[in-house]
Amino acid sequence: MTDERRPTKRACVPALEEILHNPLPVLDRGFVRVVDYMGDDAAIVQAARVSYGRGTKQVQQDRGLIRYLLRRRHTSPFEMCEIKLHVKLPMFVARQWIRHRTANVNEYSARYSILDREFYLPDTRQLAVQSSTNRQGRGACLSDDQATEVQARMAAGSAYAYRDYLWLLNDDTGEAGESDPDRPGLARELARMVLPVSAYTQWYWKVDLHNLLRFLSLRADPHAQYEIRAYADVLMDLVRRWVPMTLEAFEDYCLGAVSFSRQGLAVLRRLLDGEAVTQETSGLTPREWRELTDSLGREF
Amino acid sequence: MTDERRPTKRACVPALEEILHNPLPVLDRGFVRVVDYMGDDAAIVQAARVSYGRGTKQVQQDRGLIRYLLRRRHTSPFEMCEIKLHVKLPMFVARQWIRHRTANVNEYSARYSILDREFYLPDTRQLAVQSSTNRQGRGACLSDDQATEVQARMAAGSAYAYRDYLWLLNDDTGEAGESDPDRPGLARELARMVLPVSAYTQWYWKVDLHNLLRFLSLRADPHAQYEIRAYADVLMDLVRRWVPMTLEAFEDYCLGAVSFSRQGLAVLRRLLDGEAVTQETSGLTPREWRELTDSLGREF
Amino acid sequence: MTDERRPTKRACVPALEEILHNPLPVLDRGFVRVVDYMGDDAAIVQAARVSYGRGTKQVQQDRGLIRYLLRRRHTSPFEMCEIKLHVKLPMFVARQWIRHRTANVNEYSARYSILDREFYLPDTRQLAVQSSTNRQGRGACLSDDQATEVQARMAAGSAYAYRDYLWLLNDDTGEAGESDPDRPGLARELARMVLPVSAYTQWYWKVDLHNLLRFLSLRADPHAQYEIRAYADVLMDLVRRWVPMTLEAFEDYCLGAVSFSRQGLAVLRRLLDGEAVTQETSGLTPREWRELTDSLGREF
Amino acid sequence: MTDERRPTKRACVPALEEILHNPLPVLDRGFVRVVDYMGDDAAIVQAARVSYGRGTKQVQQDRGLIRYLLRRRHTSPFEMCEIKLHVKLPMFVARQWIRHRTANVNEYSARYSILDREFYLPDTRQLAVQSSTNRQGRGACLSDDQATEVQARMAAGSAYAYRDYLWLLNDDTGEAGESDPDRPGLARELARMVLPVSAYTQWYWKVDLHNLLRFLSLRADPHAQYEIRAYADVLMDLVRRWVPMTLEAFEDYCLGAVSFSRQGLAVLRRLLDGEAVTQETSGLTPREWRELTDSLGREF
Repeated sequence: MTDERRPTKRACVPALEEILHNPLPVLDRGFVRVVDYMGDDAAIVQAARVSYGRGTKQVQQDRGLIRYLLRRRHTSPFEMCEIKLHVKLPMFVARQWIRHRTANVNEYSARYSILDREFYLPDTRQLAVQSSTNRQGRGACLSDDQATEVQARMAAGSAYAYRDYLWLLNDDTGEAGESDPDRPGLARELARMVLPVSAYTQWYWKVDLHNLLRFLSLRADPHAQYEIRAYADVLMDLVRRWVPMTLEAFEDYCLGAVSFSRQGLAVLRRLLDGEAVTQETSGLTPREWRELTDSLGREF
Repeated sequence: MTDERRPTKRACVPALEEILHNPLPVLDRGFVRVVDYMGDDAAIVQAARVSYGRGTKQVQQDRGLIRYLLRRRHTSPFEMCEIKLHVKLPMFVARQWIRHRTANVNEYSARYSILDREFYLPDTRQLAVQSSTNRQGRGACLSDDQATEVQARMAAGSAYAYRDYLWLLNDDTGEAGESDPDRPGLARELARMVLPVSAYTQWYWKVDLHNLLRFLSLRADPHAQYEIRAYADVLMDLVRRWVPMTLEAFEDYCLGAVSFSRQGLAVLRRLLDGEAVTQETSGLTPREWRELTDSLGREF
Repeated sequence: MTDERRPTKRACVPALEEILHNPLPVLDRGFVRVVDYMGDDAAIVQAARVSYGRGTKQVQQDRGLIRYLLRRRHTSPFEMCEIKLHVKLPMFVARQWIRHRTANVNEYSARYSILDREFYLPDTRQLAVQSSTNRQGRGACLSDDQATEVQARMAAGSAYAYRDYLWLLNDDTGEAGESDPDRPGLARELARMVLPVSAYTQWYWKVDLHNLLRFLSLRADPHAQYEIRAYADVLMDLVRRWVPMTLEAFEDYCLGAVSFSRQGLAVLRRLLDGEAVTQETSGLTPREWRELTDSLGREF
Repeated sequence: MTDERRPTKRACVPALEEILHNPLPVLDRGFVRVVDYMGDDAAIVQAARVSYGRGTKQVQQDRGLIRYLLRRRHTSPFEMCEIKLHVKLPMFVARQWIRHRTANVNEYSARYSILDREFYLPDTRQLAVQSSTNRQGRGACLSDDQATEVQARMAAGSAYAYRDYLWLLNDDTGEAGESDPDRPGLARELARMVLPVSAYTQWYWKVDLHNLLRFLSLRADPHAQYEIRAYADVLMDLVRRWVPMTLEAFEDYCLGAVSFSRQGLAVLRRLLDGEAVTQETSGLTPREWRELTDSLGREF
């Protein structure tokens, strides 16, 4: 994979070519690297116009059409763009990521090869207590002292595990250095069992733009775990380089949008009529009421 | 979509670039046109090597690795290549084609736009009687006179249907020519109901190489209907241009391969031992016996 | 498939058992028939609690949990229910329906068998002109006279096509009645080409509840063509019998909900502050402004 | 989920009902438990007959039709059966398992809940050296002493990791026992990072029969890692109870079958002609030659 340039008749995106093949750092040792891509904003428009055929005589502006498609959830034209990434990520992040099924994956095989001594060690600013309001989230950060102690424990744990891993492998390739000739080496597929899920793995991941946006809408969300969000943030920047009109529409109609339920809509109408509505009179649960007032950015 | 060439750092396949954007004719009025592609033979190897990591020290030849992957049904590296096609095809072919679910589709909308006067009319050499041995196939060809009569009926039928279509639309755009101002035009989504499934439609179809090969293994097969096979044959040529090593392996290990059942294998061993086996003594059904002797190319 | 009852330890839904195997009529000759189902509202809760494990100590009410899951788009527990339907539907509806890829399908094969003389003929009240505001929809209904004339044309067209079909088949089974022994019968896979897309086909369709709800959110929508909406309405009733809590949540959080874009939300806040906002000062396009005021049910 | 029996009009499989809801042990602490199922052998036949319609006048025997469908890779009727399992499995097995994308999953969330002190500890008879011929497999077993030493290391490692996990959580629920009130507890989503991939997780997994058979053809294969094969073996028994005719056909046409490449087939014909073929004269690579002679069960 040299960086030589070759001529092509395919759609090209100079802003993405600029960083093609460059690893973009994520977390302490991870990265995202664009390996290949297909299509651009114009390719979405082109596919949509196949559907509309002669019907679209008046030249709609591309941006307007993209916004219309995204607003109306006409998702199939967005499937016409594809991107292939090389990602290095901790295993517990990989386990969340792989839940997105409509994608293609080739992962490094720990049955076949020896894993490097690479483990995710959270920055002290990311070490936080269990949230008391959200069973699935973090609360306040630890104090500096506490965070340092936690980090040290984590580092010691992964060092311990990797030492065991090498001992079990008893292999003289790679970092293992020297091996004990009087002892057999355990099969790789067994030895790797002792490694913690903070260990880094790598994969090629290929996905279409529609499914990538769904990934982002879930993983760039504040409810997602910080570590996968760090990847989503980098992906968001990539998408902005690749298909800027689509990303803008996505921010307006998905990320920045709010859905009001049938009941929430009724409350909204009463508010607009000037009625003083409270949670008690709203018909909403306390949680739903809080979500509604949060999204309106004010108290009632 | 001009044919201007732009520089890219992505994998390029000159043999495919050569015909990029050119409609390749299929049947009487159909075509297949490559709109875009991602990856090449080397991209498959590259993805496979991510999986094998440091494990593959000795430089395996690319061709050997591709053959190994295909033989062992390691399918995921083949998903790392993607192709986007623009296809014009009769609706009854589209209905078979769409059964391949792992693909992306944007079809011309007959709700939105008016369909052209384009219907598939089989060549007289393709007009054949119902097979008497295979409920799902064709037998002998019709005589010239019979075929001509059938063709004429078909042509008259689609002309009749299209005349109705235009009358119902009562639209003065396109071929409709003049419309009757005293009569309202029926909604397009209703008028199109009268068109036969021989009418041509068009779509963008995007698929990964692994799923394209599965499509070919089913649709380039003699059991597939001739009309979809005609498309499969063109696709096969495209794949040969695009990923020649993969296509060669596909022909050797899939298209040209034969699977012997547990029972068939037992018969094979007896034959190799010099035993004279007949259908009666084989333990196979007559149909299975015929399949076995056919694939061995001889009678026993 | 008798209606005998057998004992099972699986989840059972009496309201759905009541109509199990009964064809529910749709359009003039179509039907939907529940062949089998798996799971119920409780099965969704049960699967969600696997995810939450010991974390959910306080017994959340099932209904509350289902509403929470649906509101937050935690879709995977809804995939734990499955339904299998036998559907008879016009081919042009089947072509829209099949675009939902995450489902299992077995369709009647017109290569293998002869199609019955069954065509969809719209009720005169469904015959409407092309919409002038929505290229993809219907406008006002035709007058009675016009509708009767259109219906007659359609009926004549399908009769013509079916006569050709039988003539081409020249088969003495089924409705074909007598065949001409001096003439060969065309292969079924070729003869069927002359049939219009208003012809009825049938299939078994199996889908999980999450994907069924996505189907409904698109096909029970006023933008969907009337004919597929007729099926969606029947499916909606089936879902109500099957998983009533889920259907209620779906109506509140999906069907009856409205999404406000980032820009729409800003307008909403200004309105709640008492500002007089017009389309011109809103920053929205005329179409978006109309959608916003429509969903609020008032003019500004 | 009581074991009370309720009447249903759906297809029932008494042999599967017998073990419904019972955890079937796998490895040292894992299990597979059937939670629900849809369909049986007859349901496959029924779906296939929808496709064939009136075409299948002669009553084909169910077993014959199932064998025909499986032999010819007519896969869609097998998608008409569905099974839902509750599985407890080590995380490294879960990471292999999840690669089968066409399935529905709800996994225990370690962000939400605390994981139990449960780790897979291989039986000493399963501890083997790295294979020298297959980079992705095991060779000879360790001696008893070596195996005992390895096991002890593994047990100590998971005990170490779990102690850290509890210390980081500093939670007084579950096994943690007492917590230190002067120290905050780390968020669960962070603390779980220290656990090794031998830790057990659980999930609900729902899949159709066709995709389950594909899972089995890959995971019941000798090339699969022993630990996932142990699950595949239990699943195979379940499938035998559920759809015995299908499982028999699967064993005959998939598991017990062998595919001969175009080149292998040519060799076969020469052998049947009595020619003495060797690897050198065969045109096959040494590996392919070995695979061919292995599958024929003899040397040449």
